[in-house]
Amino acid sequence: MRMSDTVEWAAHCCTVLGALPHDQALPAARLAEFHDVPPAYLAKALQALTAAGITESRPGPLGGYRLARPPAEVTLLEIVLAVDGAATAFRCREIRQRGPVAADSPRAYRQPCGIARAMWRAEDAWRAELAATTVGDLITELIATVPAAQLLRGAEWIKQVEITRRSRA
Amino acid sequence: MRMSDTVEWAAHCCTVLGALPHDQALPAARLAEFHDVPPAYLAKALQALTAAGITESRPGPLGGYRLARPPAEVTLLEIVLAVDGAATAFRCREIRQRGPVAADSPRAYRQPCGIARAMWRAEDAWRAELAATTVGDLITELIATVPAAQLLRGAEWIKQVEITRRSRA
Repeated sequence: MRMSDTVEWAAHCCTVLGALPHDQALPAARLAEFHDVPPAYLAKALQALTAAGITESRPGPLGGYRLARPPAEVTLLEIVLAVDGAATAFRCREIRQRGPVAADSPRAYRQPCGIARAMWRAEDAWRAELAATTVGDLITELIATVPAAQLLRGAEWIKQVEITRRSRA
Repeated sequence: MRMSDTVEWAAHCCTVLGALPHDQALPAARLAEFHDVPPAYLAKALQALTAAGITESRPGPLGGYRLARPPAEVTLLEIVLAVDGAATAFRCREIRQRGPVAADSPRAYRQPCGIARAMWRAEDAWRAELAATTVGDLITELIATVPAAQLLRGAEWIKQVEITRRSRA
């Protein structure tokens, strides 16, 4: 079982977008450059985030992606489900309904079996944990753990993108 | 993110094996027949369970698979990890170490970032829930929920397999 790598990219992008100055947006190409990831794949992830109402895309020469909601109102769970799909990892194939001793009536199978219920309980626990972390938490944690000089370098890089864009707009 | 279908098969097989009469074993082909699943794929899953010490394989004309431990001592987590692999679903690619504002020194990245830690917390919660269900629980739940007539049909099918094998042995 494997989560797609683009989930990690999306979570990092949301963290950067959540920390942007109020009036700034970042195009997908700049976000790809910032994280050194393939632009085409990242663009797909950003489109998924926008479709889920997590990011929004503004048109125009100073346009690009922004977080659609305050960082404290976007959970890691929403990002994971938007990019990796909302289906459960365990999908019950109801093999209990097959084979020589299966019941004739589908009524015998109205309740999910113990295996499926245990699997889904586990996924509920996983989702609850991811829902407890917001982009706001990730930003707070970055500020607390990344050296100030590196945070400044990040802020400076983002500022330079905007200065360059404004000079061309 | 998707769990392999063979995990469901393996969990059902362990439940059947855990409910076998004391001196009986079931060959992979009979387990595949019982669950109406492809024998070759099921055989791979059973080999993985045996490699993990969950099932054991006895040779000979009355041989086959048995649970290697009491049902109450085999957890659903062990079955999932044996068949689907023990790697975490989220694999941190450390993209924070890439791009124009990454730190020069690897020392800056000794601690995992907040995204990775939240992902792994969620997987720990998922694993804890799966570790809380044993094959013994699954058998207890089957006995409590499956109609007696169907349980008897299952027991009868398993008994007939043994009778047929003994008549040929």
